Amino acid sequence: MENFIQPKILKGFRDFLPQDEILRSGLIEKLTATFRLYGFVPIDTPILEYTEILLRKSNGETEKQMFRFEDNGGRDVAMRFDLTVPFARFTAQHKEELYFPFKRYHIAKVWRGEKPQAGRYREFVQCDFDTVGSDSAVSDFETLSLMKAALSAIGVNEIKIHVNHRGIFNRFLKKLGISEKSEDILRAVDKIAKVGEEQVSQELAEITGNAEFSGKIIDYIKPLPSFEETLMHIENLAGGEDEDTNRMRAIYKMMKAAGIEGTYILDPSITRGLDYYTGIVYETFLEKLPSIGSVCSGGRYDNLAGLYMKEKLPGVGSSIGLDRLIAGLMELGLAESKGSYLDAEIFNTNESFIYQYQSVAEKLRQKGISVEVFPEPAKMNKQYSLTDKKQIPWGILIDDKQAESETITLKNLKTREIFESISIEEAIAKIKN
Amino acid sequence: MENFIQPKILKGFRDFLPQDEILRSGLIEKLTATFRLYGFVPIDTPILEYTEILLRKSNGETEKQMFRFEDNGGRDVAMRFDLTVPFARFTAQHKEELYFPFKRYHIAKVWRGEKPQAGRYREFVQCDFDTVGSDSAVSDFETLSLMKAALSAIGVNEIKIHVNHRGIFNRFLKKLGISEKSEDILRAVDKIAKVGEEQVSQELAEITGNAEFSGKIIDYIKPLPSFEETLMHIENLAGGEDEDTNRMRAIYKMMKAAGIEGTYILDPSITRGLDYYTGIVYETFLEKLPSIGSVCSGGRYDNLAGLYMKEKLPGVGSSIGLDRLIAGLMELGLAESKGSYLDAEIFNTNESFIYQYQSVAEKLRQKGISVEVFPEPAKMNKQYSLTDKKQIPWGILIDDKQAESETITLKNLKTREIFESISIEEAIAKIKN
Repeated sequence: MENFIQPKILKGFRDFLPQDEILRSGLIEKLTATFRLYGFVPIDTPILEYTEILLRKSNGETEKQMFRFEDNGGRDVAMRFDLTVPFARFTAQHKEELYFPFKRYHIAKVWRGEKPQAGRYREFVQCDFDTVGSDSAVSDFETLSLMKAALSAIGVNEIKIHVNHRGIFNRFLKKLGISEKSEDILRAVDKIAKVGEEQVSQELAEITGNAEFSGKIIDYIKPLPSFEETLMHIENLAGGEDEDTNRMRAIYKMMKAAGIEGTYILDPSITRGLDYYTGIVYETFLEKLPSIGSVCSGGRYDNLAGLYMKEKLPGVGSSIGLDRLIAGLMELGLAESKGSYLDAEIFNTNESFIYQYQSVAEKLRQKGISVEVFPEPAKMNKQYSLTDKKQIPWGILIDDKQAESETITLKNLKTREIFESISIEEAIAKIKN
Repeated sequence: MENFIQPKILKGFRDFLPQDEILRSGLIEKLTATFRLYGFVPIDTPILEYTEILLRKSNGETEKQMFRFEDNGGRDVAMRFDLTVPFARFTAQHKEELYFPFKRYHIAKVWRGEKPQAGRYREFVQCDFDTVGSDSAVSDFETLSLMKAALSAIGVNEIKIHVNHRGIFNRFLKKLGISEKSEDILRAVDKIAKVGEEQVSQELAEITGNAEFSGKIIDYIKPLPSFEETLMHIENLAGGEDEDTNRMRAIYKMMKAAGIEGTYILDPSITRGLDYYTGIVYETFLEKLPSIGSVCSGGRYDNLAGLYMKEKLPGVGSSIGLDRLIAGLMELGLAESKGSYLDAEIFNTNESFIYQYQSVAEKLRQKGISVEVFPEPAKMNKQYSLTDKKQIPWGILIDDKQAESETITLKNLKTREIFESISIEEAIAKIKN
């Protein structure tokens, strides 16, 4: 008896069956089209990098989760755990060849050896876009506008994008005289959506050692009914107009000019945990499913590639959590997939007609119609069952007489409507309709 | 002084700058569209697999070239070195969930730790498509037809696809009574394009121990002027009509029915080195650049997943050598790339107009026009220089009066033609033209 190897994959990794991959690649194609509409260009980087390059920016957690090894040449290498560090390395390395402001998107896999759990995988796709080499409010706005457009392109219109500015919050904390505790405060505030106001309030009192400070911070981070009111409120609390508040005002005015302001909330409780961010920060929630968390987040930073070069490169970027988004779309019934891309199946009823079948197939494909010939003259119920599973809308049948007269029978496989002995041109017109 | 890490990548790996990645992804998109036109669907598999899964099919060379390591859980894992072995594993593992005949394409990276040399990389993209679960001539033909269509979709029309059938050759060798040496003979014959007839003839004489055999083999492998003549010739030499020669005849008849027979040559010297193949085999050469070798090859096999399961899965498939193809396109001047996807740049001449700029940008994007606003009111020569580098065809300018009247000035950045104070609708029409 032969020994078979049991076919299996590693824990935390996934195969994508056609239905899943058709869904995923459809989303990626629509996102890509939107990135291009805004003038972003693609790049690619190796999935393996020198560990030294990847590690400098990371904390201990990342290091533990890395797929790291010694290659055959004795080099210490690792698989990338995000697209940001390789992008920083890339920008520093190729700065003379790139044009700034440089706007790139990168949709690719990354790896983290996390404990596998529901919805968490060790291999997943990140979908990032950044503008570097510009510190302008125009780029901030463009990023926010693109986030909305990208989600809209994949059918996700009921969203709220929560925006904030780190600088205004920092000025407010400074005014209170507690800016040296800002990191802990930011981290506490960041949790408000998860743990609620009461617990955050308590934590803030502990951090600042003062219930009054806690109350003032809670007052600061609560959004008022409109963007403009909230902006005035936090501007006053932070000590009046300055560059940061003027930038937020300019961003809001651009939103209004483009007619998209209804999607954005000025939400002073959004902080994003990372030190990395220095300007605006934002998160995106599905209105009907806020519980899954932000599906698109990011912010402005002032020094992208500081580990690799002297020049400071300011930028603004965002990352779409594709896996989380797909999970959300599934839950909301918005995930559209299909069993194939086929418009039509040419049924194989008689082996001697295969030449006629191929002639018809060629003509249809030249008109952009996706079609295949069933490879064998199998039983018709077997052939129909496959077209069902692949959700193919049209079937084509050809009999003796038709093979001579170059006509075909077209069948709508959903409605069962039949168009007998029509010309190929007529069939093309019906299928395209 | 701060310590910077020198930004660098591993030997044999590559960054893709926007211009290169725009070219590559453009080709991949066109190939993908063609695969879909023929009813193929995408799948995806992890880039890491158990080494045991990957290794069973490999020879020692592959093993040495693998990126293999022990993961944090102590598992012996490796990065895939091709897409065939993961596909075999995938098909065996999911056979109950798939529909047969199963037609999949997979375009993804693979890794081999080869000695880096000109045009050879350790990370490269493979582009495979296969039909499994069918042994029919229809699938053979469809594969050959798709190869032509896919290359045509990316602008490569001057090609010849050399086709052969392993079975006919084996029968011929058996008739000569030297079939036990067929492996060595196949290998010698496979080199004829590289080393020439004389050397192959000599090698064959050595292998068979007989100059007469060598002469007969050389006679067998030489194509005659037409597909049909060659088929008759080898059919006679192999002992007359049989299943294999009838299949070749059916394939040729399908080519003629589809009107594409001019692209194919029946070339009995094509053997493909691998034991794996059992039926038709094929290679594709650029007519103007045959020296770079085959850009799309494959064949029919009778047992895809024999390492992982009992059932035999026959199939037929092909692989496009994307890197080699891109190198060929470059050499032939057929590689079309561009600096961006942008149709238009909105020049930033006055910071106070940014709201008007964004309003115009939004309207253009809604009509599918790719546009960006230059983020800062930089000097005009800097702005023009960027549009040059990005090869953006149109520029948009807005002055005080226009901001009020909602008109714009459109400039053709190539011809320098200017359309002053036209409506946004007029501008859209001109850009789309």
